[in-house]
Amino acid sequence: MSFSIPAEFSSRLKTLFGERCSDNASVREQHGHGESHHAVAPPDWVVFVESEADVVALVKLCDEFGVPMIPFGAGTSVEGQLQALHGGVSVGCSRMNRILAVEVNDLACVVEPGVTREQLNHHLRDTGLFFPVDPGANATIGGMVATSASGTTTIRYGGMKHNVMALRAVLANGDVVTTGSGARKSSAGFNLTELFTGSEGTLGIITQARLKLYGIPEAVVAARAQFPDVERAVRSVIDLIQSGVALARIELLDHNALRAVNRYCKTTYPESPTLFLEFHGTPAAVLEQAEMARMLCEEHEAAGWTQTDDETEKKRMWHARHNAYYAALAEVPGGKGWVTDVCVPVSRLADCIGETQADLRLEGLQIPIVGHVGDGNFHLLFSLKEGDGDALAQAQRINQRLIQRAHAVGGTCTGEHGIGVGKKAHLVVEKGAATVAVMRTIKQALDPKNLFNPGKIV
Amino acid sequence: MSFSIPAEFSSRLKTLFGERCSDNASVREQHGHGESHHAVAPPDWVVFVESEADVVALVKLCDEFGVPMIPFGAGTSVEGQLQALHGGVSVGCSRMNRILAVEVNDLACVVEPGVTREQLNHHLRDTGLFFPVDPGANATIGGMVATSASGTTTIRYGGMKHNVMALRAVLANGDVVTTGSGARKSSAGFNLTELFTGSEGTLGIITQARLKLYGIPEAVVAARAQFPDVERAVRSVIDLIQSGVALARIELLDHNALRAVNRYCKTTYPESPTLFLEFHGTPAAVLEQAEMARMLCEEHEAAGWTQTDDETEKKRMWHARHNAYYAALAEVPGGKGWVTDVCVPVSRLADCIGETQADLRLEGLQIPIVGHVGDGNFHLLFSLKEGDGDALAQAQRINQRLIQRAHAVGGTCTGEHGIGVGKKAHLVVEKGAATVAVMRTIKQALDPKNLFNPGKIV
Repeated sequence: MSFSIPAEFSSRLKTLFGERCSDNASVREQHGHGESHHAVAPPDWVVFVESEADVVALVKLCDEFGVPMIPFGAGTSVEGQLQALHGGVSVGCSRMNRILAVEVNDLACVVEPGVTREQLNHHLRDTGLFFPVDPGANATIGGMVATSASGTTTIRYGGMKHNVMALRAVLANGDVVTTGSGARKSSAGFNLTELFTGSEGTLGIITQARLKLYGIPEAVVAARAQFPDVERAVRSVIDLIQSGVALARIELLDHNALRAVNRYCKTTYPESPTLFLEFHGTPAAVLEQAEMARMLCEEHEAAGWTQTDDETEKKRMWHARHNAYYAALAEVPGGKGWVTDVCVPVSRLADCIGETQADLRLEGLQIPIVGHVGDGNFHLLFSLKEGDGDALAQAQRINQRLIQRAHAVGGTCTGEHGIGVGKKAHLVVEKGAATVAVMRTIKQALDPKNLFNPGKIV
Repeated sequence: MSFSIPAEFSSRLKTLFGERCSDNASVREQHGHGESHHAVAPPDWVVFVESEADVVALVKLCDEFGVPMIPFGAGTSVEGQLQALHGGVSVGCSRMNRILAVEVNDLACVVEPGVTREQLNHHLRDTGLFFPVDPGANATIGGMVATSASGTTTIRYGGMKHNVMALRAVLANGDVVTTGSGARKSSAGFNLTELFTGSEGTLGIITQARLKLYGIPEAVVAARAQFPDVERAVRSVIDLIQSGVALARIELLDHNALRAVNRYCKTTYPESPTLFLEFHGTPAAVLEQAEMARMLCEEHEAAGWTQTDDETEKKRMWHARHNAYYAALAEVPGGKGWVTDVCVPVSRLADCIGETQADLRLEGLQIPIVGHVGDGNFHLLFSLKEGDGDALAQAQRINQRLIQRAHAVGGTCTGEHGIGVGKKAHLVVEKGAATVAVMRTIKQALDPKNLFNPGKIV
């Protein structure tokens, strides 16, 4: 399948980018995959862009020679978004990592795509503001825009779709477009910001993002409670949401996830289905909310309610949650991550997780399940030995049934990982051929030579 | 410009729709305009669709004969979105007004496009849920999707873009597509829901919408306070937002708006710049929030802080706010509405309103200004006598300068009214030719014969 790179292209590329481009095998290998099982597909070149002008020059050169481009942030995607299926250039954005503006009075900032979310929040620490979207990994903002990332705080603050105000992007013809504005809302023309958010690098290369920021809440209380089963944990979630308790985070870890976390993080959490919660607000409000949550959870037989505003304890708890993925990997020595996520209506979540657990039991597996359950979103964290074809086939079978289960209740094949190459077939089942045809029409109209991350999504 | 309708088209239309289509002059006239100054441009036919199958049949017929289609909801748009610039068929959606499902456990509902927001909230009243987006007018959901409507509660609940989970729409080729899913979030492919939201009928005809619902808050407290000037009112807004006070509504009415409202609604509000606020939450939380708000407003010399949880008083207050538009019209006997809105970064809002007031004073006018100031969005409510060319030219001049002022500070030419025909030139100035070209490319790709609401947006 791989496209053969003309020598003239390589020579022009070296003239343009000098030391900033590389065809070194290990650099190419590193840019040919994300954090998942998908096979490495290295690009022919890696270019480390440092400015929008670099991106424009690169896009024009690639357009001239018909060379594919795959934008690369921190390499944390999991559905094969970074594979250079048709060769070409990986556009490394890590050096475009300037924070261009923090507009404290407008609760907004402007960043380059290579800024990571931890870098941004570190930079913001003295302003009293923070950027809330938290997919777990220390991804780049550009990557988070591209995959329409969300995470633990989405129930309160929304995902990327709700927090990107505007983008600058370089199109196939080298044009630079600005979507959105400095205003917090607008009805001016098509919602291109939202169209580019989640487009996984297939429509253009993002060079700048304006993001919404939030005041760091005056008080933050974290809590956890364990339940006899997932059913009752999820019932509590539904009641909490309906009763209007202001949740900032509500995460489920099943018994397998807690066992893995306890081993990996040296914690001693009870190994039964557990909700990790967080409340943001004024001191009085968070205590009121936490108390309402405790009562509702205990109505569903929650035990061991623990709540804390101690920084160290809160950090330990969220550190454990964020390390669930790595804890799951460590369950299989030398294992490689194979993760999947679905999102379903919350009313169907308990059934969906319950049936998935039964499926895993039937297959003789103890795979951790963790979820942003307030959104109806959960993950299966497989850890597979390299080259273990049987285990891979088994994971694929279970994933297939998981997605069928999600579709059967009106859910989606991915809540936050994106389509990449891993879920292209599922996208067609979910949306129908006519809807995917609309996506393909848009892709073809904006990238007629199919040079931006070809082979992904559609 | 008007397209000549072939006799065969009309005869086929009558066969298909019988009594449900009309070429009666007054019906056509009524469907040729919204609630604004834009000249009436009646369609050749009005068809009252009753089902998605009707819409598909109509679209196929129009496609066959190259006849334009303009979807019509409640007729409350203000930027000329409903003008049949090239003749054709107005697709009246008022009879597609079924509420198809209310999913209480999932805080969601599914409705046809002709359902109005008041109808929906009336239907929901026994469920403890409500749909929050409130543009003032009793618009249809389809129309609110099409113009990406927002309003008084957007600061807390977001606008349509944030509250539409999925759409069904009929495309130019007669295909029916489903965007989104029953899940509250998804990363599955391009964000078509958001692309269709705000497309003003130019990409297809919406036949169904799945919406997010919210629990009716346990406690609702409304408050108001008047300020010596707009500057101090807006300073208070910035402080309130930064301090994280949970505002459900924060509306500014300037002295001209209050004078008009007092006359029209027989109220006696002090006629100086005033904030109308609302807080939603638990009884303790709303009192805490209201108290914080009072203190912050009084730091900016607010006087006459009044707060209430009395239903009648709250209704009177929001009735007054919602009638500001009609109150402004009534200032000029026989006047017709000529409204415009911009949205700017909140830090620039005080300057922007102040300069606009100065401009109005220089022009010798006392035009009411009202705004969803938490979002940086405000409206000028002109009332013009039919045929008064001088007054129209003056309003256009002032609007031109208003939009230049918004653009100069990074704002947008419309926060919630849309582009229609009224702001097409401003869209190009705001976004640049390259970005508008992207919109046009998408429009052409999805509607190659340009039959869906031609002449709007791009």
